[in-house]
Amino acid sequence: MSAAITLFEQQGYDETTIAEIAEAAGLTKRTFFRYFADKREVLFNGSEELIELWVAAVASAPPDARPMAAVSAGLDQMADLFLERHEYAAIRSRIVNANQELQERELIKLQSLAGAIKMALIARGVSLNAAILAAQAGVTVFHVAFARWVEQDDPTVFRRLMDESLDELRSVTAAA
Amino acid sequence: MSAAITLFEQQGYDETTIAEIAEAAGLTKRTFFRYFADKREVLFNGSEELIELWVAAVASAPPDARPMAAVSAGLDQMADLFLERHEYAAIRSRIVNANQELQERELIKLQSLAGAIKMALIARGVSLNAAILAAQAGVTVFHVAFARWVEQDDPTVFRRLMDESLDELRSVTAAA
Repeated sequence: MSAAITLFEQQGYDETTIAEIAEAAGLTKRTFFRYFADKREVLFNGSEELIELWVAAVASAPPDARPMAAVSAGLDQMADLFLERHEYAAIRSRIVNANQELQERELIKLQSLAGAIKMALIARGVSLNAAILAAQAGVTVFHVAFARWVEQDDPTVFRRLMDESLDELRSVTAAA
Repeated sequence: MSAAITLFEQQGYDETTIAEIAEAAGLTKRTFFRYFADKREVLFNGSEELIELWVAAVASAPPDARPMAAVSAGLDQMADLFLERHEYAAIRSRIVNANQELQERELIKLQSLAGAIKMALIARGVSLNAAILAAQAGVTVFHVAFARWVEQDDPTVFRRLMDESLDELRSVTAAA
């Protein structure tokens, strides 16, 4: 739906109608609603794929990998997935950050992601608490690094930014 | 709104109408909507107070306190706040956990809390990234410990459960 994102950027998210989005994408309004529950979902197209990729990475980490190492295998996948999508991601972030409802939807999607990672860790035999904490740490690191990454010119730095964020999380939570 | 929670527990959240909640609380339906935007909000009454308490604790931590120490001052406040509300919290958790929409609202409230803590840390001079990570760690620890606390018989263990969760977060994110 890069046609939609162009419309949002040009004329504003609130000002763009579903009829316009559908037309720009060559869909009828009826077909639009077969793919998207509402207008917001246009900006979250691909979030299922992202979750599946991350979950698959956790599931296929070596059996003896620690929980956070399994989560980090998902971070590797994210860096790969987004490498070719830097420009789109930067525009999309500006649209989401300017709209309260979109920010709420984003947070819900991130929590779905954390929930899916948690389940994948539990399936590896990780305890419930460790699974929640490792999944949440992974998603937070992803979220913080993502916000920094879209501000950078070089799209290849995403993985490094994730490592930096994880280091910073460790440093910030270190016992006094 | 403990009258409402009793109704939800007795006859189910979905099955309880706003008219019934208002009547049980001695409100007219019109007055109900002056206090609550929708039925869900009945279960999030007090979340503003919780945020204010936590933010005040962060703001009044000693000037040289590290970010996570300032966040932990908020955890102390939460343990005090919830000490007398253990039974209510346990019933409320069962209702929320059984309903997808309520879980989503809960996640949004937790993210509002994280956002408010982040701002309070920034006001202390903490960098944006450290503020996001410390706030998120604090809210995650609170959330995980809360879920364990409502399952316990002894309401005084909440602060200890938070410390254990923070230790577990450190352990889970420790470098291999």
